Amino acid sequence: MTFTDHTHDPNLSSWVESANDPATEFPIQNLPFGVFRRKDQPDTPPRIGVAIGDQIFDLGGAVEANLFEEIDPEVRCALAATTLNDFLSRGRDAWKSVRTRISQLLAADHAELRDNSGLSEDLIIPQSDAEMLLPAEVGDYTDFYCSLHHATNVGSMFRPDNPLMPNWKHLPVGYHGRASSLIIDGTPVKRPMGQTKADDGDLPAFGACKLLDYEYEVGFFVGPGNPIGTRLSMKDAAERIFGLCLVNDWSARDIQKWEYQPLGPFNAKNFATTLSPWVVTLEALAPFRVDGPPRDTSGGSDDPPMLEYLKPNDEASRKLGINLTCEVYITSEHMRAEGIAPHMVSRGSFADMYWTIGQMLVHHASTGCNMRPGDLLASGTVSGPTEEARGCLLERTWRGQNPIQLPDGSERRFLKDGDEVILRGYCEAQGAKRIGFGECRGVIQPAE
Amino acid sequence: MTFTDHTHDPNLSSWVESANDPATEFPIQNLPFGVFRRKDQPDTPPRIGVAIGDQIFDLGGAVEANLFEEIDPEVRCALAATTLNDFLSRGRDAWKSVRTRISQLLAADHAELRDNSGLSEDLIIPQSDAEMLLPAEVGDYTDFYCSLHHATNVGSMFRPDNPLMPNWKHLPVGYHGRASSLIIDGTPVKRPMGQTKADDGDLPAFGACKLLDYEYEVGFFVGPGNPIGTRLSMKDAAERIFGLCLVNDWSARDIQKWEYQPLGPFNAKNFATTLSPWVVTLEALAPFRVDGPPRDTSGGSDDPPMLEYLKPNDEASRKLGINLTCEVYITSEHMRAEGIAPHMVSRGSFADMYWTIGQMLVHHASTGCNMRPGDLLASGTVSGPTEEARGCLLERTWRGQNPIQLPDGSERRFLKDGDEVILRGYCEAQGAKRIGFGECRGVIQPAE
Repeated sequence: MTFTDHTHDPNLSSWVESANDPATEFPIQNLPFGVFRRKDQPDTPPRIGVAIGDQIFDLGGAVEANLFEEIDPEVRCALAATTLNDFLSRGRDAWKSVRTRISQLLAADHAELRDNSGLSEDLIIPQSDAEMLLPAEVGDYTDFYCSLHHATNVGSMFRPDNPLMPNWKHLPVGYHGRASSLIIDGTPVKRPMGQTKADDGDLPAFGACKLLDYEYEVGFFVGPGNPIGTRLSMKDAAERIFGLCLVNDWSARDIQKWEYQPLGPFNAKNFATTLSPWVVTLEALAPFRVDGPPRDTSGGSDDPPMLEYLKPNDEASRKLGINLTCEVYITSEHMRAEGIAPHMVSRGSFADMYWTIGQMLVHHASTGCNMRPGDLLASGTVSGPTEEARGCLLERTWRGQNPIQLPDGSERRFLKDGDEVILRGYCEAQGAKRIGFGECRGVIQPAE
Repeated sequence: MTFTDHTHDPNLSSWVESANDPATEFPIQNLPFGVFRRKDQPDTPPRIGVAIGDQIFDLGGAVEANLFEEIDPEVRCALAATTLNDFLSRGRDAWKSVRTRISQLLAADHAELRDNSGLSEDLIIPQSDAEMLLPAEVGDYTDFYCSLHHATNVGSMFRPDNPLMPNWKHLPVGYHGRASSLIIDGTPVKRPMGQTKADDGDLPAFGACKLLDYEYEVGFFVGPGNPIGTRLSMKDAAERIFGLCLVNDWSARDIQKWEYQPLGPFNAKNFATTLSPWVVTLEALAPFRVDGPPRDTSGGSDDPPMLEYLKPNDEASRKLGINLTCEVYITSEHMRAEGIAPHMVSRGSFADMYWTIGQMLVHHASTGCNMRPGDLLASGTVSGPTEEARGCLLERTWRGQNPIQLPDGSERRFLKDGDEVILRGYCEAQGAKRIGFGECRGVIQPAE
């Protein structure tokens, strides 16, 4: 297996000028998929599109304009749908053939669409003219807990003697999340009400969450699924993961603390989960795929031997770590009013996760649980070994003990009304064109 | 509000003869909804139907035959759909109008369909000629833990000093479940593989589940939902619950024990959850609705005061306990081969639950979590105060210490391959016609 093809050539440029801007997150090497609607046509069905520079290439329109005649007819139909689900079900060969064709159509030296100005004006839409929607109908959303640093930090706050549960290094711990409250980048998030109990109180109370937090996570969409009662191998996993996006797993820490035992987080998480709109494909990520972090399985350290079903068995399943830089920014209402730039709160790397996306998927299906195209799995908070690499406020401020200073002079232990949280992510590697994930934003609205 | 209308009259009979059999679960007073396909027409779209005796009244066909002309046109369309979701979204007035009309059409003294033998032969189909399907597309499935007896029993096995968590009596504890692996009555269940660790082992292993269990639960389908960021009141809840079905929340106890801390059950539950096919409506259950169990909130007992948002505020929201008898039967492969009748393992009552279905729904939405039509919430294991009323083997055999004797001479600590588990449920009340829920069955297939 090779991880690069012509579509990754760092010298490739596009006739869509903004895609050649060195600062763009969406050069022609990226080509992430999303679902959009033109703001001036709010009553039309959503369309699948691909980000290119500050524009969107309208794939539904391109199918209608017969630009995908060489693609399998069923795959072509899938590109003309209103969600990515059908396309996700088509599998890696289909995904590759479409990527190759899009790369060709948008390449600077390819005249077909470039020189057809009537058509290209129809099919290339400024992102600013589009409303982004959830990329897929998510049948089930699952949240993992795969950062050793995050699990250790959080565990040490709540269980100082026993921060890491005995199972943690043997399996990717996960739990089922709420699909209905997945929302897209930019959707405001209302501070939840909920039941909480003060440490020194006798009785719980119902009221507005006081300890509202974000969690920087990376999500991935499942492609072809497995029938109930069958499992997936690590080799399958590498074939069935379509692409990744950023996920903000908003968390009400005070609700969580009171409710989570013994069945896990529930209301603390189900009020909103924000996704970035562009799904960056595993194909686009090929230059940035790395092994999971090294483990010492000699018996000399505390890394236990890995059970066979979770062991990568080829190059593709081994390289399911992603060298993705994860940044969190906050702005207060005041900062935005004053034009103060977003303040970076943390920067970590998705390559630091103990478990890879392949291991999450394989473990999830290991009981015969059926995965469906469009299912979303998220990694859990991405935290690294340093304070600056901690991906949620609970860790970053150590439960509020070490507040963050914002440039407007205010400080944050947890989120305040009016705060905007912005997740950003990008990949860089020697010899490869830098690509980005875009943003995952949400402003906190007061409880009511 | 009145809990009875003409459709509950115990003297009402039907021209569908089998509906008048004293042993039927589906007299004309019941009229539960389901989705079916004729076995001889496997390629046709599914239809919504209502059980009547041992027959199904084909509602999609009845709409086509103009039998619902007096019903709102949008509701009529919803009845001609392939799942109940659209009908669920229409709300209680729509549900009542349809129930009233169906009751009229099937009543012994109503000639309209009775005397049109051509049409009635088309629209009344033997249940034995139909394949039942999931009644709705379940967007999200949530599982609660609302039996005090179950929570106390299970808690005392795993945490003898602290069986009931401090939060338990303050809120209906729940967690998100897996929607993809919801299956319908009769679907075989493959014994899951999974990661487990023996108490005396150093390392976990991956292999077939050794402690496979069922859980008798009662599920309910949500009707009209709430937008994200809004809550539901107890009064809303009574209006928005469409109906109930039986749920077998199959559980791999050895997988569960190893994985569940700190984020709750995951793979131990996601391999299969079986639903009974007929959704018994809250209208049909009106004669069997009771208050939740009495609580002593004088401060003299350990029942804490109930927070305002969970307090019933009218007759309808108070009477969201259901006097539903819950029976579990097991047959071994050998028993079936010998023609030995299913062996009753437990009998409990859904009226024993500490939290009502209304409180589950209200708590779920209390953070602003959006509920959608077709969402399924399940109660958690229904266990009562006696040994005979324990709704899962973990409790019934006390972790295998007190095995059950089957009539073929074998004993069960947990389920064996070839065992069939049968859940049954029925409601009886003075002055009301007995109604049943049908069955929820599943045979255990060997792991592979």
